[in-house]
Amino acid sequence: MVGGAAQLTGTLAPMQFGTDVAAKGVRERTFEVSRGDRRIPGVLWTTAEDGRPRPVVMLGHGAAGSKREDYIVALARGLVRHHGLSAVAIDGPVHGDRRADKGAVAGLPFVDFVQRWSADPGLVDDMVGDWRTTLDAVQALPEVTAGPCGYWGLSMGTIFGLPTVAAEPRVAVAVLGLMGIAGPTKDRFAADAPAVACPLLFLVQWHDELFPRDLAFELFEAFGSTDKRMHVSPGMHAEVPAEEFEASGKLLAAHLLD
Amino acid sequence: MVGGAAQLTGTLAPMQFGTDVAAKGVRERTFEVSRGDRRIPGVLWTTAEDGRPRPVVMLGHGAAGSKREDYIVALARGLVRHHGLSAVAIDGPVHGDRRADKGAVAGLPFVDFVQRWSADPGLVDDMVGDWRTTLDAVQALPEVTAGPCGYWGLSMGTIFGLPTVAAEPRVAVAVLGLMGIAGPTKDRFAADAPAVACPLLFLVQWHDELFPRDLAFELFEAFGSTDKRMHVSPGMHAEVPAEEFEASGKLLAAHLLD
Repeated sequence: MVGGAAQLTGTLAPMQFGTDVAAKGVRERTFEVSRGDRRIPGVLWTTAEDGRPRPVVMLGHGAAGSKREDYIVALARGLVRHHGLSAVAIDGPVHGDRRADKGAVAGLPFVDFVQRWSADPGLVDDMVGDWRTTLDAVQALPEVTAGPCGYWGLSMGTIFGLPTVAAEPRVAVAVLGLMGIAGPTKDRFAADAPAVACPLLFLVQWHDELFPRDLAFELFEAFGSTDKRMHVSPGMHAEVPAEEFEASGKLLAAHLLD
Repeated sequence: MVGGAAQLTGTLAPMQFGTDVAAKGVRERTFEVSRGDRRIPGVLWTTAEDGRPRPVVMLGHGAAGSKREDYIVALARGLVRHHGLSAVAIDGPVHGDRRADKGAVAGLPFVDFVQRWSADPGLVDDMVGDWRTTLDAVQALPEVTAGPCGYWGLSMGTIFGLPTVAAEPRVAVAVLGLMGIAGPTKDRFAADAPAVACPLLFLVQWHDELFPRDLAFELFEAFGSTDKRMHVSPGMHAEVPAEEFEASGKLLAAHLLD
């Protein structure tokens, strides 16, 4: 089924819903929310079981993916189905529905993202703003609990997630990883990491070919959280094992639910 | 209550039981087993609920502790009570009941152990032999499953556990940690680590003041296991958080029970 448009009142950005489907207890809606002249395309996953509000976890996808890539959708559904949470994902810059081709050309190469990451000094703050606007919008819905929320994002999901977690006091638990004090915004990571103070799981791939582990270890050390742990798995950048997705769900739920 | 002596037949070492108590579903027996002229003092934890055999986990304590130190007893009871396993611990060399004072003087200083570790080239093989004899003895009991077993031991529990896991094909899952390619037997670690091939959880304390993390990372890399993961927590050597004991129990049970 296709849902109608929903218009929020007050100072909130208008939120427009697109598709609205439910399967196996999970309701999945696409939406767009506006911030100035920016349109932020997203997906919201909530329980189809009842109308009680649940805390939300923001899911930041990796470069060359989108808000709907397989592991994001699987993680979102698992958070709703098994952990009593809601989940929301938005497309990263030059990804998914933000692309002129709307993602019709599969697999934006990682190098294209790195070029943009290098060339646009406003990229990080744009995405931090988009996340905070998205959070405002979804937390205004009756299905989503206002207040404490989670953030989960690896690789590019940490490039934008780390500054988001540092800036947004509602984030009460986070999963970050596949990143180090590295790349065009490494000074930003070093500056923001001490402000990340919530319970944190940091994921590292021992054989990460994109971000060397020593730089990841530097980032782990820099986080301000006293309640932090780092899980290191063998394998390359994209080979995060299933057990770390399970560990993510458990940690998020442990800190967002009583 | 005090149990009687049990004498095993065949080629097994004689096993002599001492105290025999049960509390909260866990039966705890002290025992001694002989290997040549060595007497190996141990504790066995099995379920008090029924007589069905359960796989056993060998628990190697840290230096300055004993087979009965608090975290060993707590872990053993948890494995029996919550994970459907059995557990066995033996005293390390110059520890617990192997000391002339039978442990009456609390807290053998770590430095005393390191002196012995440095001076006795047979120390590791003696303990590997003691563990294998102990495993033979407890697996001959009807309460303990013969065959696949687990090993858990940090710090000194890895100094002796790593070579034991490498040598003993019955070990089907292991938790090691708080150690690196370091100390008097570092060449032995480097030689044996590739032979550790079972599923493995390796624990590291980020601020370990005894064994620097870089040397621990070298050891993690050297393990032959393809199914391995490293969990890194902030804090000093002895500050392993409770969640890593929980993770240990889950991994051991996942690989020892169907």
